[in-house]
Formats: sequence, C-alpha cells, structure tokens
Amino acid sequence: MVPEIHPNESVFTWAAPPLKFGPGALDEIGGEVAATGAATVLVLTDPGVRDTGIPDRVRETLLAAGLKAEIYDGVAVEPTDESITEAVEFARQREWDAFVAIGGGSAMDTAKAVNLLTTHPGELLDFVTPPIGGGKAPWLPVKPLIAVPTTAGTGSESTTICVIDFLGLHLKAGVSHPKLRPSLAVVDPRTLLTLPPQVTAASGMDVLSHALESYTAIRYDAKAAPEDPMRRPAFCGSNPISDVWCEMALKLVGENLRAAVCNGHDLAARTQMALASTYAGTGFGNAGTHLPHANAYPVAGAVKQYRADGYPEMPMVPHGQAVSATAAAVFRWTYPADPARHLRAAELLSGRTFTRTDGAEALANVLTELMTDIGMPSGLRSFGYTKDDVPELVDGTLKQTRQLAVVPRPLDRPAAEQIFLQSL
Amino acid sequence: MVPEIHPNESVFTWAAPPLKFGPGALDEIGGEVAATGAATVLVLTDPGVRDTGIPDRVRETLLAAGLKAEIYDGVAVEPTDESITEAVEFARQREWDAFVAIGGGSAMDTAKAVNLLTTHPGELLDFVTPPIGGGKAPWLPVKPLIAVPTTAGTGSESTTICVIDFLGLHLKAGVSHPKLRPSLAVVDPRTLLTLPPQVTAASGMDVLSHALESYTAIRYDAKAAPEDPMRRPAFCGSNPISDVWCEMALKLVGENLRAAVCNGHDLAARTQMALASTYAGTGFGNAGTHLPHANAYPVAGAVKQYRADGYPEMPMVPHGQAVSATAAAVFRWTYPADPARHLRAAELLSGRTFTRTDGAEALANVLTELMTDIGMPSGLRSFGYTKDDVPELVDGTLKQTRQLAVVPRPLDRPAAEQIFLQSL
Ligand SMILES: [Fe+2]
Ligand SMILES: [Fe+2]
Repeated sequence: MVPEIHPNESVFTWAAPPLKFGPGALDEIGGEVAATGAATVLVLTDPGVRDTGIPDRVRETLLAAGLKAEIYDGVAVEPTDESITEAVEFARQREWDAFVAIGGGSAMDTAKAVNLLTTHPGELLDFVTPPIGGGKAPWLPVKPLIAVPTTAGTGSESTTICVIDFLGLHLKAGVSHPKLRPSLAVVDPRTLLTLPPQVTAASGMDVLSHALESYTAIRYDAKAAPEDPMRRPAFCGSNPISDVWCEMALKLVGENLRAAVCNGHDLAARTQMALASTYAGTGFGNAGTHLPHANAYPVAGAVKQYRADGYPEMPMVPHGQAVSATAAAVFRWTYPADPARHLRAAELLSGRTFTRTDGAEALANVLTELMTDIGMPSGLRSFGYTKDDVPELVDGTLKQTRQLAVVPRPLDRPAAEQIFLQSL
Repeated sequence: MVPEIHPNESVFTWAAPPLKFGPGALDEIGGEVAATGAATVLVLTDPGVRDTGIPDRVRETLLAAGLKAEIYDGVAVEPTDESITEAVEFARQREWDAFVAIGGGSAMDTAKAVNLLTTHPGELLDFVTPPIGGGKAPWLPVKPLIAVPTTAGTGSESTTICVIDFLGLHLKAGVSHPKLRPSLAVVDPRTLLTLPPQVTAASGMDVLSHALESYTAIRYDAKAAPEDPMRRPAFCGSNPISDVWCEMALKLVGENLRAAVCNGHDLAARTQMALASTYAGTGFGNAGTHLPHANAYPVAGAVKQYRADGYPEMPMVPHGQAVSATAAAVFRWTYPADPARHLRAAELLSGRTFTRTDGAEALANVLTELMTDIGMPSGLRSFGYTKDDVPELVDGTLKQTRQLAVVPRPLDRPAAEQIFLQSL
C-alpha cells in the first residue's frame, strides 16, 4: 500500500531565556528580583549546594535590595513526586512574588514545579502528558523565576521542562510548557571553581551530549507537519538556529573540558565551559536530545550498587555518566543518517580533520579519547550491568517517546540491543 | 595626572524574543494570539504593506481563531511623535488584549509605542531618556506584541527600542525598555518574495551593517563597569554570544544577498536572508550598532531632494542606503582597533581569505564590491550632499550618544569629518 502523503513540517520555533553572564553576575540577583516588582522571594536549593555558601550569598543580595527572602534547601538530588510535594507544601505556607533556583537540574526543575503549583490549584500529575497525567496546560500567570545553574551541565535554565520521578508509578515523566521556562538565567563562572573533577567531567559530558544530540537530531522539516500547529512538540528537531548554538558548544567543550577537569581553578576554562553549557542549553532546549538521553533513563534508573566519586554517598549513576555511557555506540549507529554532520562534529570536538573514509569511527573515537582523558567510566559494566540486563535497559529506552521522536533514524528493538551490547 | 582606576565590566546580558520561522508561519498568528488568552487584537501596519494583502490575510487567521481583530494602517514610513500620537489615539478608543505589528521597523516601533501608551498613562516624552525626556521606566504590565517583519532588514522584532522623530524638537530619540521587546517574532520568508530589488538591496545592507557593527563594537569588558549594574545600557558591546550570531549573519548575507536582489522569487535566497536578518537582530539587539548607524541619522535627516526607486514618492534616503553610505570609510577607520576581526568579517562576507598585508582595504573593498553588484548608491553625492554639508552631518553624528558609546575607538570631530569626506 502506498502511504498517505502528509505535507512536511515547514516551520520551526526557538526560544531562550534572557541571560546575564559573567563573574560577578551572582551579586546582581537582588537587583534583578527587585526589578520585577517582587517583595518576597523564595530561594530553592539542595543541601550540597547550600554548603557552598552560594545560596546564602545570594540571599544577602536579596536582603540588600530590600526584599524578604527565605531559603528552602530541601531539594532532592533526583526530584520525585514526594520531594516536589514537600517543597510545594513549604512554599504554599506563604505568598511568594518570585523564585530563585540555585543548583543543578534538580533545583531548577523543583522550582519550576513549585512555581506552577503555587500559582495554580491541583497537583503535578494534572499537568503531565496523558495517558500518565491529566494533560492540563497552565492557564494562569506564573511568577518570575531566576535560574542560577551552579554546574556547567544541565541546561534546565534554558528549557520549559521539569522531569520528575513518580515513585508510585515507577516512572519518570515530564511537565513541559513555555510558562515553566525561567524568566532569567544568571550564569556566574565563579560558582564552578570548586566543583570536583568527577562532577566537572560528568556534567561536561552532559553539555557535550546536549549539543551533539541536538545537532544530529532529525531535521525539523524531515518530520510530518503537526495536525495542530499550536501543539508542536516542545522539541522540534535540529534547525538552523540550534545548529549554530550546538556547533559553538562542541568546539568549546573540545577545547576546554580537559583543562576544567584537570585544574578546577582555571577560570578561563570554567568560563568557556559555562558558555558551552549555555550555548548547548539554548540549542537543545528547542531541537531536543535523542538516544543517549533516552538510554540514560534506564541506565540511571536500574542502578543497584554503583557509587560515583564526588557525588552523594548513595547508589546512583550521575546523569552525565549515564548519558555518555552509550554515546559512542549511538553515534556509530546514527552516522549513516548524516555522515557529513557526524564528521563535522568530530572535527569541532577534536580540532582535527576527517573525511568520509574515516567513517562512523571518527566521532566514536573522538568521544572515547575525550572520556578516557577526563577519567569517565568506560562502559556499562562499570555501573554493574551485564549482558543479562540489556533486555530491561532496552525496555526502558523504548518508553522514552519524547526523545525517540527526534532520533534521526527509526529505532527498533534489535538496534537498541546492539547499542547497549556495544556499550557494555 | 594618573586616571582613577575603574574596574572593567565583567558581565554581559543577552536576550531575544521567541521565534517562529518558516514558510507558513504567517498562518499561525491567529493561534498564537489566541494562546495568549487575548480576545481583541489590533493589527498595526502601513499603507504600503497593507497593499500587499499580508495584513488582511493575518486578520483572517485572527478571525478564524475566534478573535476580534481590527487593522490600523496609518503607520508612517518614518514614525514621528505626531504619527505615534495618531496611532495611540486610535488604539485608546478601545481595549486591546494584544497587538500584531506587520511591516518594517516603522510598524514595529509604532506598535511598541502604542503598547506602552495604551497600558500606561502619559505621553511618549515621559519615557525618553533625560535630558530630552522624563526618563520614566514602564511600571505596569504591557500586552503581548507579535512582530511580523516583512523586510529582511530591520531588526526591530528583536530589540527593546523604538525610535521616534520628535518633529518639534528637531531630533530623533529612542525609548528603550525590556518590556518593549516583542513577545514573539513571526518570520515567514514568503512575505519577502515581492519586495522590489532596491528595497531588498537596501534592507540587506542594513542586515549586513547590524552584524558588522555589532561584531566590531567595543568589547563589553573593555568598558568601565557601570555604577549601577541594574542600569546597564541596552547595548552592551560585542560579546561571545552576539559574535556567534553576527558571524553567521555575515556569511549568509555574503552568500545570498546578490541572489535575492537579482531574482526576488528565489525562495531559498529569501529564506537565507530572512535567517540572516534574524541572526543579526539577535546579535545587535544586545551588542549594539555604532558609527554607520550614528552617521545614518544626519544622512537621512538632512535630505532635500533625493528619491529612492522602490520607495514612497517623497524625498528620503532609505535607512539601509543611509547606513551603508559611510560603511567602507568607517571600517577602514575602525580597522586598527581589531585587525583580525575586520579581516575575518571580510572573509565571511566574501568567502575569500585575507591576511594582515591586505590591511584595512580588505573589508572596505569587499563592501564596495557587494554594493556595486547590488546597485546601491555609491556615495553621499548620490543623495545630493557636497563637502559643504560635512560640518552639519558631523554635528548630527556627534549627538548619537547611544551609538557612540560602543564605537571601538574614540571618535573626535576630525575623524568623523574624514569619514564623511571619504564617503562623498
Ligand atoms: Fe542532560
Ligand atoms: Fe539598521
């Protein structure tokens, strides 16, 4: 049967929050919040970030600007429906005019949920995409939310999405809406100077993967046009604007990640990595990540014993490690979808030149070299996985419909299995 | 005397409106406005653009989305305090929930002013920077404003600024505030297909100049830190983010402007020029333009007889012609401030390679070649100016403090004179 002909998509969308960038930006947060007209502000962070002293320093700038400010430091390292409920219950005790999120993705995602649920009645599940949740869109104004990323890794400051682990449902799900995008991102590279090497490495690989996945995602105009253009997915596939951001991010990561890992106090390398993270967030916040991120969910979710240096004392695979564990195999498999683009990515990351005769191995090798240089775990076995775990990991990947929608070639179970097997 | 040491600026800011880009984007404006929750919407445009049928087509999409929509087509080609007052008086007759501006800079700047003055009491001068105006900042919420540029030239859809000719005061002045930035830019390259060659050429040179001026503007961190960081100027000088956008824009203009001028129906070239305009807007909306734009004010303002093909039948120097008339001489003069950057710009524009031995002439020649190829007027004499007009033109330039603040080397009267004399 001849398939029905659907017109292709011809439109892409792009958006990014306003940015304030540079050493010293942190000290301007009081002025920024005051400029929104707010009188009371809640700072959300996690205990580890609180220990760095950054949230209290920001609180000083808020008080100096004449604001009432409180700190909530109960954010969980991986936000769950329970940890979000706790934060929301805390926040609902008072009226807040603005929020400041300080930390990694956890703090920013928690703050997005708190902003939503202190301005709207109901609970988180009401806003999750059906069939899991009620699929409501926020219909009331939300409050200003200033995002202050303290790792160069997550891109949550740029995105409209908040990802939550629903413990009772045994799954991670996202709430996404333009109203959840922070109203301002404040990036101060000085906040990175004390990140331990392993955290620098893993979050740097997360940046790399955001850029590389968005850059190799299916082209926005290779997809069918949406039935309702007002319901385009949050992630539209690669496009001329995200391409620019992603190329820049790849170049900066290739040039600076090693130095940032080897000498954490190299402010120049830290500044370039902070820029790379911002660039990549601005790119992937619209284009979207694909398979390495889809794989990262089951890889992180099914962990039993693995503990990572530099991270909290609990069994966990840090997000950046989970993402990069299958990256080389993924990009070997996506290579035929656009060889030129994969070779270009390898060139941007390495500063070397490659030709078609280098083939799919060029990018895979460049990734492996970089991961070796910065001491990243070299395979899924490091986390305790064996061949026997692959079917379960594949099951987990195949559930990630949001990411699978922008994979550049159709993924079936055998392909997913092969990628996990190659990544052991 | 040893000068007092001021710390240098260490922070830059960046922002751009959300974007919807591609053939067909125009037809989604109804849905976009409805999604803001608006019920009534005013479309602002000028008579020439109305004649293209685009505003009425947009009105159809607004009606189809269940909105009440009216068109105001009294926007002046160069907005004055009088033309703005007329538009504001029209708009104040009813309550509008949203605005759509369709056209060039005039329509978008008028819509920004109408948005401000229908949500705030007072008049335009209250919001102009002192000593000319009252220096008020908007303190109330404004309405959603969707900007639909129909020339690939202006970047008003990206900026916070609206420029008005105050007839009684005999000067142009700007109102600038983040609240004036459109809430969405909708760029549909199909709207460009019927632009006459001369308009395509002039607006394309405006894009080029936005990119080139921002790219060569003083570095943000070569300036002194502001006394009050919350009062940074709207334009902060060149920075790593605007650089990326400007480089991309220069490349696209170099590769596509000739084709867009020679064959207006080349949709691929039109699409690339629309992207270039968006890229440049994203860059200069934060970095800022400098001397060619400063010179353009007196060049356009003092015109007596010149009429431009493709433009309304009145004495005027189109903005893009006014801007590019002094560009070659300006960049010959700014060259020593950063030779590498000027050579790089020449390479991006031409696709050729240049070295330090090519010097300041490389970029000047590349600009002159391009302008010859697309039939731009070749000097100030084309507009009717002679050597005798130079002192008055220089006076006009030296008043443009906003642009002069980011010129990459100190400008004195003899330097400004020399630039005008070289540009005759
Ligand atoms: Fe990630
Ligand atoms: Fe301009």
